Amino acid sequence: MSSSYPAAMRRLINELSKLPSIGEKSASRLAYHLLSGNKEPSLVLARAIEEAVEQIKLCRVCFFLSEEEVCSICSDAGRDFDKLCVVEKPVDVIALERCGGYRGLYHVLHGAWSPLKGVGPEHTKIDELIVRLKQDSNDVNRAAVNLEDPLSNEITELILATSTTVEGDATALYIANYASELGVAVTRIAQGLPKGGELEYADEMTLNLSFRGRREL
Amino acid sequence: MSSSYPAAMRRLINELSKLPSIGEKSASRLAYHLLSGNKEPSLVLARAIEEAVEQIKLCRVCFFLSEEEVCSICSDAGRDFDKLCVVEKPVDVIALERCGGYRGLYHVLHGAWSPLKGVGPEHTKIDELIVRLKQDSNDVNRAAVNLEDPLSNEITELILATSTTVEGDATALYIANYASELGVAVTRIAQGLPKGGELEYADEMTLNLSFRGRREL
Repeated sequence: MSSSYPAAMRRLINELSKLPSIGEKSASRLAYHLLSGNKEPSLVLARAIEEAVEQIKLCRVCFFLSEEEVCSICSDAGRDFDKLCVVEKPVDVIALERCGGYRGLYHVLHGAWSPLKGVGPEHTKIDELIVRLKQDSNDVNRAAVNLEDPLSNEITELILATSTTVEGDATALYIANYASELGVAVTRIAQGLPKGGELEYADEMTLNLSFRGRREL
Repeated sequence: MSSSYPAAMRRLINELSKLPSIGEKSASRLAYHLLSGNKEPSLVLARAIEEAVEQIKLCRVCFFLSEEEVCSICSDAGRDFDKLCVVEKPVDVIALERCGGYRGLYHVLHGAWSPLKGVGPEHTKIDELIVRLKQDSNDVNRAAVNLEDPLSNEITELILATSTTVEGDATALYIANYASELGVAVTRIAQGLPKGGELEYADEMTLNLSFRGRREL
């Protein structure tokens, strides 16, 4: 970074370039944007970061982002408390919620099992998921929907919606092994040709998965 | 944006997506990055924004970014005070400084004349440049290098290094007209094929400019 910039500008560029997919050039451009014109929007952004960092924690049940102990989804009595969908990231919850087709609960892993990157099950919320499943199968006196103790609700279907990468598949298999031991029905989201996809341009893996996963019409 | 996110998260995504070339998806990803893991780096970023906004102003001579009244370039006695290079953005100063070939002063316009976008000379620092040139040509008692009053130094060459867009060219012409009236020698940075460029892939305008601007070897 050029030493011609004043120190406060260099510090700002340095901090911005630590963000994912922001290189030094983008960081300079963002820093200049933040400093040019009106000061107020930049200070509003700084305060939004501080407030979000202070206020947002992980839901103690599903580990989605929340301002409360238990998130808005886990504390919604209108949801299907017997379905549990496992995803890698909070943004995956948002993607599924946008579809609107699913009304069950979630469990956010905050990562996927990736031995090559040195990420083991202990770096994600996989253990917490196992505990959640075990707690459920041990609790014989559980209510159908217990909002006081959301962890106590019976789960009849565990939907593995981790991504369809090597890591996502490995994570799904790892969880499936545990879950089947506990007698929970486990499903995996379908893999195949995306909507609007042409066979001509699909890679071989996808085409194979799509073919093997064929269903009666 | 999904209403499933807690309010502080939605506010943060909203503020981030106001930044240039950051869409809602990138903003979500950045927000999640800022909230996951250690809180400290995110708070450091917020403070870096606040500090930069508070501390950085424009140099009163050249309008480059500075923590002082006069920036580090304008107050450097080792520079050539008789050359003045006009650029559109502070980042252009950094780009030229990185080359290391120029040791004169700068004037940052903070924009270019663009009637189509409704940006007139009055929205940039063009008027301040004219004043700077006039002040120079009126001041008969000026010293060769006067650090106390950098505006009083004689300028013998005005280098127009605005970008080679329609707006940049128009701005350069606009300034050149004024400057020649004041008797200042005006040059424009060369336009042509970039280093490593192949004629085959160059657009017609560039090729034309490159051809017309040919020089004896």
